[in-house]
Amino acid sequence: MSHNTFGHLFRVTTFGESHGPLIGGVVDGCPPGIALSLATIQGFMDRRRPGQSRHTTQRKEPDEVRLVSGVLETEAGLITTGTPITIIIDNVDQRSKDYSKIADRYRPGHADFTYDAKYGLRDYRGGGRSSARETAVRVAAGAIARAVIPGVMVRGALVEMGGDHAAERNWDEVANNDFFCPDAAAAHRWADKLDAARKHGSSLGAVVEIEARGAPAGWGAPLYAKLDQDIASALMSINAVKGVEIGAGFQSARLTGEENADEMRMGPDGEPTFLTNNAGGILGGISTGAPIVARFAVKPTSSILTPRRSVTRTGEEVDVSTTGRHDPCVGIRAVPVGEAMVACVLADHFLRDRAQIGSDR
Amino acid sequence: MSHNTFGHLFRVTTFGESHGPLIGGVVDGCPPGIALSLATIQGFMDRRRPGQSRHTTQRKEPDEVRLVSGVLETEAGLITTGTPITIIIDNVDQRSKDYSKIADRYRPGHADFTYDAKYGLRDYRGGGRSSARETAVRVAAGAIARAVIPGVMVRGALVEMGGDHAAERNWDEVANNDFFCPDAAAAHRWADKLDAARKHGSSLGAVVEIEARGAPAGWGAPLYAKLDQDIASALMSINAVKGVEIGAGFQSARLTGEENADEMRMGPDGEPTFLTNNAGGILGGISTGAPIVARFAVKPTSSILTPRRSVTRTGEEVDVSTTGRHDPCVGIRAVPVGEAMVACVLADHFLRDRAQIGSDR
Amino acid sequence: MSHNTFGHLFRVTTFGESHGPLIGGVVDGCPPGIALSLATIQGFMDRRRPGQSRHTTQRKEPDEVRLVSGVLETEAGLITTGTPITIIIDNVDQRSKDYSKIADRYRPGHADFTYDAKYGLRDYRGGGRSSARETAVRVAAGAIARAVIPGVMVRGALVEMGGDHAAERNWDEVANNDFFCPDAAAAHRWADKLDAARKHGSSLGAVVEIEARGAPAGWGAPLYAKLDQDIASALMSINAVKGVEIGAGFQSARLTGEENADEMRMGPDGEPTFLTNNAGGILGGISTGAPIVARFAVKPTSSILTPRRSVTRTGEEVDVSTTGRHDPCVGIRAVPVGEAMVACVLADHFLRDRAQIGSDR
Amino acid sequence: MSHNTFGHLFRVTTFGESHGPLIGGVVDGCPPGIALSLATIQGFMDRRRPGQSRHTTQRKEPDEVRLVSGVLETEAGLITTGTPITIIIDNVDQRSKDYSKIADRYRPGHADFTYDAKYGLRDYRGGGRSSARETAVRVAAGAIARAVIPGVMVRGALVEMGGDHAAERNWDEVANNDFFCPDAAAAHRWADKLDAARKHGSSLGAVVEIEARGAPAGWGAPLYAKLDQDIASALMSINAVKGVEIGAGFQSARLTGEENADEMRMGPDGEPTFLTNNAGGILGGISTGAPIVARFAVKPTSSILTPRRSVTRTGEEVDVSTTGRHDPCVGIRAVPVGEAMVACVLADHFLRDRAQIGSDR
Repeated sequence: MSHNTFGHLFRVTTFGESHGPLIGGVVDGCPPGIALSLATIQGFMDRRRPGQSRHTTQRKEPDEVRLVSGVLETEAGLITTGTPITIIIDNVDQRSKDYSKIADRYRPGHADFTYDAKYGLRDYRGGGRSSARETAVRVAAGAIARAVIPGVMVRGALVEMGGDHAAERNWDEVANNDFFCPDAAAAHRWADKLDAARKHGSSLGAVVEIEARGAPAGWGAPLYAKLDQDIASALMSINAVKGVEIGAGFQSARLTGEENADEMRMGPDGEPTFLTNNAGGILGGISTGAPIVARFAVKPTSSILTPRRSVTRTGEEVDVSTTGRHDPCVGIRAVPVGEAMVACVLADHFLRDRAQIGSDR
Repeated sequence: MSHNTFGHLFRVTTFGESHGPLIGGVVDGCPPGIALSLATIQGFMDRRRPGQSRHTTQRKEPDEVRLVSGVLETEAGLITTGTPITIIIDNVDQRSKDYSKIADRYRPGHADFTYDAKYGLRDYRGGGRSSARETAVRVAAGAIARAVIPGVMVRGALVEMGGDHAAERNWDEVANNDFFCPDAAAAHRWADKLDAARKHGSSLGAVVEIEARGAPAGWGAPLYAKLDQDIASALMSINAVKGVEIGAGFQSARLTGEENADEMRMGPDGEPTFLTNNAGGILGGISTGAPIVARFAVKPTSSILTPRRSVTRTGEEVDVSTTGRHDPCVGIRAVPVGEAMVACVLADHFLRDRAQIGSDR
Repeated sequence: MSHNTFGHLFRVTTFGESHGPLIGGVVDGCPPGIALSLATIQGFMDRRRPGQSRHTTQRKEPDEVRLVSGVLETEAGLITTGTPITIIIDNVDQRSKDYSKIADRYRPGHADFTYDAKYGLRDYRGGGRSSARETAVRVAAGAIARAVIPGVMVRGALVEMGGDHAAERNWDEVANNDFFCPDAAAAHRWADKLDAARKHGSSLGAVVEIEARGAPAGWGAPLYAKLDQDIASALMSINAVKGVEIGAGFQSARLTGEENADEMRMGPDGEPTFLTNNAGGILGGISTGAPIVARFAVKPTSSILTPRRSVTRTGEEVDVSTTGRHDPCVGIRAVPVGEAMVACVLADHFLRDRAQIGSDR
Repeated sequence: MSHNTFGHLFRVTTFGESHGPLIGGVVDGCPPGIALSLATIQGFMDRRRPGQSRHTTQRKEPDEVRLVSGVLETEAGLITTGTPITIIIDNVDQRSKDYSKIADRYRPGHADFTYDAKYGLRDYRGGGRSSARETAVRVAAGAIARAVIPGVMVRGALVEMGGDHAAERNWDEVANNDFFCPDAAAAHRWADKLDAARKHGSSLGAVVEIEARGAPAGWGAPLYAKLDQDIASALMSINAVKGVEIGAGFQSARLTGEENADEMRMGPDGEPTFLTNNAGGILGGISTGAPIVARFAVKPTSSILTPRRSVTRTGEEVDVSTTGRHDPCVGIRAVPVGEAMVACVLADHFLRDRAQIGSDR
């Protein structure tokens, strides 16, 4: 079966498909009385919105969010009521175009073959539920999640594209380029790199880093509700993601025990503090109070002009090249999606922790 | 709260702590009439059992599995009844030793600080629920999972230790050395490497690779019940794991679209086949029929003799060095645990797929 | 938190509020390739639709169902794709009327006080999520559930109103009167009774009976996934329901062991058969193959013209009488809702059973 | 599948079977630092324990509870650690007797036939998971739940046996007789009644009432996490229960709107108060602050000496009479079980409410 819901107490269910009239979601479990701003939500949407630069798909979607339940307009502004919040985003530019060419052929790297293998049929229009368009709803849900944990700042950056690493983490730089890149020099290189790939009918992969600051020590649990486990699940649920790591991640496997274990001292505020953060802010599944750091790998866009060998539903061998509007590097727009997913996981764990421990920390 | 359960239809709940009289688990949702062999289960237990070589902890635990419910001894042998199977493993060598030295100091890299931060108290004897001893139950559950999907072979290997890669995937070699290493030459190097680390009061990290062959195309779902998402969650739930990747994983971020997308042709059996497997057997969250390949990074053991700076519960700055019986590379014994977790995820998805699609594939 | 989802494998999430632009739901886990008919779904909607007779509220809602995802129009008609089906029902007649009179006073029998007690605020327009309007979505979901288990017929009847019992179970009669009453004489009496109640500014309670025929023996589970437990939960989740019973129900507490235990003999088809059905088709939480029979008690409508003593948010003592469009007996329109809930529970258990046992029974 | 878990945040998983070496359970999500008393837990166990009077089964089970994880012995006594609490109860008197007589014949009223229908096989020794012995674990879990919500008093009584009602609710009387009966005169009558039934090889049904005082207004949710829905589910999950009602229950269907809706006035403490409690303390799925009142119907014991017609696995028609140790009225020992289930539901909703609202109320 499809489970279209994630989260336990801050629960998000998404619905709709790329080619239908709308997509949307339900955010369940949100506390009452939380102030929301449609403008703020829309700001997050705009970061993911297609067509913001020549480096993303030219599909034109305003991605205007409507909240059709669970909120109340008061004199002090929009607040949550505690009942489920319904997000509706109309599809405007879904182009009921000619899908006959791909209806019966499997695009390499896409879910076409596996969809057919699973369901025995496939709604080939726009990728069905596999379309990255669904991630718009996640961004809206993430914006609500942020309002639930206002003391936590979640931010993301593209830290690698096509194997080329950002050398810096200059967070002020992230908004200054088309790539959410925290390194101006890298962003400059990537623009050329991505133009070249697009012109060659190719595409590039990328690595996204998400950082959450302000989460207190104590969120998560020792087993099966580990904070890192839930972050891994949430990030791996994003389209095209093939790897997830926390803190030093795979690099930690190359450290010695004395290099890896973050030492502690008393901080200037009289609280214990960590001298390094290889743990990425999580030990034993529970947050340490240090910044939570996660990274995920996004494979290169599978929709490329360069022909690839494939087969059809009926077993004919064919070459497939994908025309149309596509992101040459889906990793770029995955940045706000990754932020949203981490925000949702943290809001969920805030509520779960509050349930068991009883404080707002 | 702690959620001590994972899986949806093949559901595993574990219980117990390292220092208590027993640990155990409940496997819920197992089909009836499945033949089980205690000897086979015990065989998997023995692979994870401590004290098998000088390279693992010298704690002596027979790890004898008792199944105290959900099974019936018949003339044809032990079979499942369809009701929950309870696994009990007695703790034999728990050494009610002197914990006073660590009771109030936080061991770097361990969950001591975060436990206290979360719960306000901590059962310091043996790490509580954070002890890797809990993973014994996972191995037993995984052995049952394997019996549910007998057509699927799940196997694992240590493919990197201390930054040194196994050059081969010689699966026949895995049982021939103390490291589950698929490369005899690497195993030889690692023995020296690990001896050296242990003698220096240090420890090493590792990377484990799990491969599942025989799973049909069609398991998983497009969203939030993605097979890769559930594998990532399951593997990240293992102690000391800091990263998970599927197929080409982080490396896929460095490929171009045409390199990464696995091409298809018709196989000799008249079925579509993939010419490469960068996808690691999963596309759009659904299995492709190709081998499912996942890797996870295990940080070096945090319990080391080399002193590390830390603090106590009351804010005193101290140096902590950990004596006692510890694995110098916890990645080794994580191999059978990783296999077990993937087996459980696959058994779960087999049942979930059968629910929705109605066939046994 | 609100959990706006029910079911495990056939999962229904509802959203929206009475006064908003729309209500809707997501049906997750539906098998692919199931033939749906919008006309058939609409037929079920019409049975619940308000304004069908003088005995129900005069609110005019067409309750037209749109399926905006999870279905595909094929030459053979509309079929499910296996991905989540989204139901949208526009609110047409929500009358953004003057709620100021009730905004700060608690209507007795309503959730006004408890909403405020829980959330500290209340969306007083139309009852928020407590509005019975939400049940329209359940009926649509139930229509889809029926298509998943076409061999099972689920039907309901009003068997008691205002303490007056239907003497017969003439199912052919149910469609012939305004009450879904299986006894023509009772229906005649009830018409007068309900007219009298309405004229006196009063309202009546009722008992609804649901019967499901065709479910095989074997659905359900011994513990915590008992079929009767899930039916009880589903029926108790309907607005205004205060009691649920299975088979002989509360009457079984007045029988002796030998009267109550349904005896068995071999049926004419060579299959075991029950000579009576006090169990209501469920033993030990598992279906017996006999008709599944459940009843639920619906309290009289709380919105009545007769003034009742109450208090305001600020502690002022007031008398409240509720004008506006209301059902004088909410039990009537609860009949199709009860059917829908039982259909959803059975579809869920069909899938759960198929997961574990592997057959389509 | 079997789901052997109930509850969301205060989650209970039970395991084991009547004839095995032990039964037990895991209580997950319990807050840390809760003081527990083994003596208090044992006190609740003793109320359910068999063999306390001639009116219950003579099976001798000490039902001694061991807590093997999740607790810590401190100077101040036993406290919870916040990790899962494991309950173990050894089976002492399981009599590995001769089951050959019932191995292939279906006892009317029991789950024998449905077990076979579901699983294709059946562990006939002691009823497997259908044995009421499992309810011992619920009582232990309920005792822990009570400690989580110490301000709430949950108590139960047998209010009807064999159709004979208790006229009073004299709670002080409940401990004075063998029936948990709140009416001394009724208890006297019931003793004779039950002796007569037992002598005639018959059995009696009963109705149990559970009352919870001290729960604040605000627990529960408008939809699908309704407090009454979860109570209904929990009580219907008890063996032999065929009906559940809240407050006036089925009787509310016979009241008019003005009789049924509980009026409100300001209480002497300046808080809103209800003048009646037909709602049984729950409106719109949320607690009102008034006592929560639920009742459930327990069918007469199916294990009776009087022969009943039945069939065997192979289709032979037989008469079955059940010898051995059985309760002539299982409703009696269902009283502490019902209390325990309501306590667990309330502890769960306390945590769920605290998660969303953030206060301890």
